[in-house]
Amino acid sequence: MKRIDWNGLDEAGRAAALARPAQSRATELRDGVEAIVADVRRRGDGALRELTQRYDGIILDTLQVGDEEFAAAEARLTCELKTAIRDATDRIERFHRASAPVAVSVETAPGVRVERVLRPIRRVGLYVPAGGAPLPSTAIMLGVPAAIAGCRDVVLCTPVQADGRCDDAVLYAAKVTGVHRVFKLGGAQAIAAMAYGTDTVPRCDKLFGPGNAWVTEAKLQVAGDPAGAAIDMPAGPSEVLVIADEEADARFVAADLLSQAEHGPDSQVLLVSPSHALLERVGDEVERQRRALPRADIAAAALGESRLVHVRDLDQALDVSNRYAPEHLIVQTHDPRALLEGIESAGSVFLGPWTPESLGDYCSGSNHVLPTYGYARSYSGVSVASFQKQVTVQEASAEGLRHIGPCAATLAAAEQLDAHRRAVTLRLAAMDAIA
Amino acid sequence: MKRIDWNGLDEAGRAAALARPAQSRATELRDGVEAIVADVRRRGDGALRELTQRYDGIILDTLQVGDEEFAAAEARLTCELKTAIRDATDRIERFHRASAPVAVSVETAPGVRVERVLRPIRRVGLYVPAGGAPLPSTAIMLGVPAAIAGCRDVVLCTPVQADGRCDDAVLYAAKVTGVHRVFKLGGAQAIAAMAYGTDTVPRCDKLFGPGNAWVTEAKLQVAGDPAGAAIDMPAGPSEVLVIADEEADARFVAADLLSQAEHGPDSQVLLVSPSHALLERVGDEVERQRRALPRADIAAAALGESRLVHVRDLDQALDVSNRYAPEHLIVQTHDPRALLEGIESAGSVFLGPWTPESLGDYCSGSNHVLPTYGYARSYSGVSVASFQKQVTVQEASAEGLRHIGPCAATLAAAEQLDAHRRAVTLRLAAMDAIA
Repeated sequence: MKRIDWNGLDEAGRAAALARPAQSRATELRDGVEAIVADVRRRGDGALRELTQRYDGIILDTLQVGDEEFAAAEARLTCELKTAIRDATDRIERFHRASAPVAVSVETAPGVRVERVLRPIRRVGLYVPAGGAPLPSTAIMLGVPAAIAGCRDVVLCTPVQADGRCDDAVLYAAKVTGVHRVFKLGGAQAIAAMAYGTDTVPRCDKLFGPGNAWVTEAKLQVAGDPAGAAIDMPAGPSEVLVIADEEADARFVAADLLSQAEHGPDSQVLLVSPSHALLERVGDEVERQRRALPRADIAAAALGESRLVHVRDLDQALDVSNRYAPEHLIVQTHDPRALLEGIESAGSVFLGPWTPESLGDYCSGSNHVLPTYGYARSYSGVSVASFQKQVTVQEASAEGLRHIGPCAATLAAAEQLDAHRRAVTLRLAAMDAIA
Repeated sequence: MKRIDWNGLDEAGRAAALARPAQSRATELRDGVEAIVADVRRRGDGALRELTQRYDGIILDTLQVGDEEFAAAEARLTCELKTAIRDATDRIERFHRASAPVAVSVETAPGVRVERVLRPIRRVGLYVPAGGAPLPSTAIMLGVPAAIAGCRDVVLCTPVQADGRCDDAVLYAAKVTGVHRVFKLGGAQAIAAMAYGTDTVPRCDKLFGPGNAWVTEAKLQVAGDPAGAAIDMPAGPSEVLVIADEEADARFVAADLLSQAEHGPDSQVLLVSPSHALLERVGDEVERQRRALPRADIAAAALGESRLVHVRDLDQALDVSNRYAPEHLIVQTHDPRALLEGIESAGSVFLGPWTPESLGDYCSGSNHVLPTYGYARSYSGVSVASFQKQVTVQEASAEGLRHIGPCAATLAAAEQLDAHRRAVTLRLAAMDAIA
């Protein structure tokens, strides 16, 4: 990990210190995904079968996972894992239910009622990656808010494994969250299938979930097409920033940095601290712990792009963090809650020594589908609201129109929109005619 | 307006009947906008001055509107218009405040607290078009939620007029909503300036507001660039769908259809009704009222793409509406509220004879920046939430980690993420060592 002295840097140096590994939408990737999307639109299920054979090496008889496959998957799982999936689901449900949007009704003037009602997005498509390892936790993170939002048609795509099956735990997690329509599809072809529909895969209004560069590029492409589908957010590699002071336990901090670094060689981890001693200790501890990991090589690659940043004090640490806008922000300081007020941009925050990022990744209750790559400056993580539309409703009585109609007519006249004005004045005249 | 019998159509005919005028991101438009964006990124303020001279025919001394210009604009406005702007702002504020997201705090397990906190997006850019006529109402619709969200830096761009000034009412509306940084910039160059920043225009994290095809294309381009800015939503031409029954007043319905049609030749208006007689009456009335409008030609062009749709009953009318997913949905039936439950996809809904769309456009309290072009299937209109990030926070005590740590460790093991697992087990071991 590279050591950086924040106060020894000029503006350009600071920008470089917080730069993320470049993410170019390379022409090759763009063209490759465009070809796949076009193929799926043109040839539907036939294309899906061919692409799955080409990329996953599997000849699929049926694309959809059948009831007996769900049952067999469940039977193969340990009781411990099934219990963990159900417990995690319960806690995630509790938090997501509590933070779901609520209906609103306000009288803004006598006789004028304005409301906000909530409507589920009808058909949603969830993508659960299984590139490195399958991610049942992502099935929970997407399935729970979709269910609370009341989405009627929920579709889930996840890559098929070498044995022709989908991962047992992903299927069980899907079932526990109420998702029964699962397709053995991965990559750009899965995104294309959900965005445009085929004979077998229903066309979805919005797509959710993380994925590799192909999946991400496909999501961007279908989101840019009015005939395509909306997406949850743009995505990049995972990342964590830790703010820690002298009192932090270097072993804990190192473990948290590594749990991000093992995600992939392009993951980025930063430690920001006013304590030279801590930076030193954590640097050593990271190396020590890393060697024991099964994914030690991946972690080493990620650590190559990572930073130990020395700052003047915790206020400056907050400045650095807000500027970076990390997906995950861990605070291990003497009084972590004292820093919360100053946190402006982050996907999810973890306070104190006993809150490793793993808790949020799996089972504290918050969502782990979060904005990466600096998008935390303007995007939020997935929540129930991501699966709903907020529709405004207004109803004026004759009295209400009398009250606010003249205001609307004046503004319409200022905007030279005469038909807008007349839609009001014609009604006011009709009222007078009745009276 | 074209008459359509919904039940006489097959599936393809129904799709065609609800098709919107094609919206292609023509290569010419794309390339033209790309060139402007690149020029603004490269040459900054110099490019802005040149482009403004080329497209608006104005040589700008300073890009930013000065204090004395605000004061002069206010002095030129009528008392009536200023009062209307303030009254509308008050009501919009009331509704937006009531429907703003709230902080949440939940204990999801003993010793595990999960919260949602709200943070304003730091720098936001508002675009207020003035192509046909200037739109002070849009300045209100964007300025009010930005202020309630607590955005610290708010920038507004609006095209310069032939007299070298910005519209007086737009400036006054900006000031009333607390926006003091206004730039005399329009078109793709305004979007580029706010997305990337110049010496004069600050770089913004998210851009809001409607605009013509150039503005919309520029917004899509900067949203697709990680170095660019997020946007509120994709946009298309404005549209309304009216559901009316035998009892509706044909004059009111016609006036509402026309107030949408006058927006532009590509606006689309639909009337859906089970009553042949009403469809007939409204058709006649539209033609009669249209002739009296200053923008009669624009309305005639829009009506050419519009439809009178006959359906079996009001349930079928709802089906048609949900399938179309209109930006504005007006319900003028015997019991309009009875239909609300069945409305799935719409930007904003107007119930009953005394609620013309103009009320929502200007001053009922709801927002008029709404999803068009079928995006109401998956997007919501602008609200306070659009200007905020929802950040999740978790804090576990040692007891909390004991409770849910094993669940996280089990799931991490299932996902073969060993460092995730160890970040938990190492802490649990440390606890045991202390005890």
